Amino acid sequence: MIPEKELIARIRRMAGSASQRQASKTASPARMIVGIGDDCAVLRLRPGDDSLVTTDFSLEGIHFRRDWHPAQSAGHRCLTRGLSDIAAMGGEPTAAFLSLALPRKFSQPWVTGFVRGFIHLAEKYRVTLAGGDTAESPGEILADVILLGTVPKEEAVLRSGARPGDSIYVSGELGGSAAALERMKAGDKAGAREYRRHFYPEPRIELGLALRQKKLASAMIDTSDGLSSDLAHICEESEVGAEIESELVPRARPGTREVALDLALHGGEDYELLFTAPAARRVPPRIVGIPLTRIGQVTRGRRILLRDAKGKTSNFAARGWEHFRR
Amino acid sequence: MIPEKELIARIRRMAGSASQRQASKTASPARMIVGIGDDCAVLRLRPGDDSLVTTDFSLEGIHFRRDWHPAQSAGHRCLTRGLSDIAAMGGEPTAAFLSLALPRKFSQPWVTGFVRGFIHLAEKYRVTLAGGDTAESPGEILADVILLGTVPKEEAVLRSGARPGDSIYVSGELGGSAAALERMKAGDKAGAREYRRHFYPEPRIELGLALRQKKLASAMIDTSDGLSSDLAHICEESEVGAEIESELVPRARPGTREVALDLALHGGEDYELLFTAPAARRVPPRIVGIPLTRIGQVTRGRRILLRDAKGKTSNFAARGWEHFRR
Repeated sequence: MIPEKELIARIRRMAGSASQRQASKTASPARMIVGIGDDCAVLRLRPGDDSLVTTDFSLEGIHFRRDWHPAQSAGHRCLTRGLSDIAAMGGEPTAAFLSLALPRKFSQPWVTGFVRGFIHLAEKYRVTLAGGDTAESPGEILADVILLGTVPKEEAVLRSGARPGDSIYVSGELGGSAAALERMKAGDKAGAREYRRHFYPEPRIELGLALRQKKLASAMIDTSDGLSSDLAHICEESEVGAEIESELVPRARPGTREVALDLALHGGEDYELLFTAPAARRVPPRIVGIPLTRIGQVTRGRRILLRDAKGKTSNFAARGWEHFRR
Repeated sequence: MIPEKELIARIRRMAGSASQRQASKTASPARMIVGIGDDCAVLRLRPGDDSLVTTDFSLEGIHFRRDWHPAQSAGHRCLTRGLSDIAAMGGEPTAAFLSLALPRKFSQPWVTGFVRGFIHLAEKYRVTLAGGDTAESPGEILADVILLGTVPKEEAVLRSGARPGDSIYVSGELGGSAAALERMKAGDKAGAREYRRHFYPEPRIELGLALRQKKLASAMIDTSDGLSSDLAHICEESEVGAEIESELVPRARPGTREVALDLALHGGEDYELLFTAPAARRVPPRIVGIPLTRIGQVTRGRRILLRDAKGKTSNFAARGWEHFRR
């Protein structure tokens, strides 16, 4: 049996010392009234804010592998998924809930490393670990992370706001995370320093906030599934089409050379922001230090096209990002 | 590959038609601004309310078995877990998030039945299915349910409010759910009608609300882990002890005879409310039609004792409820 009580007590201690360190920083948009240790967590929001809620699985063998990902990286990555969703709404994260199912025999150092990676990133964004659940897993390690955030009333940036004529932008560079997976699939090592965007991706919280505050983004999503899939989500919710110029897509350069175009177009888990902006608005080349690149425009109709270097267009079909297979 | 898009679309349709039916009823304490289909759900709370958040795994082989539990029962039970946590705070549920990981080959009718059981119960308590996640499971069916609720500012009933001298009460009857498991473990059938508390447990939402509004409960928890474990949680958080009289514990009577005392004392998943009330307060024998039974009292010190029919006391140790093993 899992020493569940001990595990919860340990997570509670780690979360507790983190929230004490946080208390010295500036005020959070939500106050934790009751954290871990009751039937529910109790939170008090800043009045006039809307609540954001997102939930993401991180499953061993689907989203991470113990032989590929250091425990701290696995913990970091599973929190990034939720933080990145909050960023894509232009919101501020406030509280996280970590549900963890572990096989009967599990490595205590691995779990401690995982929780440490999770809490280290949580602290950075002043997010309190407010609760969760523990269970015995029938097989692999299973995590489900719930993120709560806030955004001023009616100001959340939705997927549905893109209009024909809007320009399409992406932050940072794409394909770096998929390139790390490609290396590891081939049996090569991928270093956490070289492939930081894969192992320790930084969610674009400040950028999302700035885009919302400046009212630059008409629609926004994070690139968790890959550019082709995430662009399709925006087009579907906004009922528009799009045209992307492949030459404009910023490709990651882990090590010395840039990644293959395919990885930048379809590879997932870069956790950049993909957004649209009215053509008349001037979007600066950088916001909060993050480069922004115009890669195409929103069109009337529902077709999503890719224009190559020679000016030839083809269907830009969403290739469902399947993480990886064992 | 999972037809994930199709699955999400189907859940979205089922959730959508449910929320339309709800709209005709009385106003909910929280308004859904954005539901399924964006990076986050967006909710607007009634001003002056605190938010409640709880999250519970329901894992195949640990919390349910496909050969024992009809799909609708599995869906119902996994939502009850969260609703019952909201009830134990004296709160009102507002929104649910369902994260579902399915093996590569899964039965579509099973999943539809599961979601139907979930949504049927959600509708009853005017809870909107506001989001979630889907993933491919490496093995079994995995569900994680997040429930959001509200409670008027500072009125949540915590586990930590029990004081020496308080009386200890439990709603309904105990051991009925564990009795069903015992039968199924022995290879017998357990009917959903006879063992309703196991297959379709009703969360005690109205009772929790009434106990909070009447300010009767000084501390409260739901009996998900079993009386001995859940009482230990109250005692730990309140820093008190307790003395329970075994003869007073109300035992379930599925079929013709009442369950063994052990099942009532330690069996989990009855989802009744266990609460303490100041000795001077008169607690009626029923509230909202649910019988309430005084089973003991809160004591100074930290010991938790069980007094038997002959007046002999022994340690009432928490027996961690382990659901069941394959």
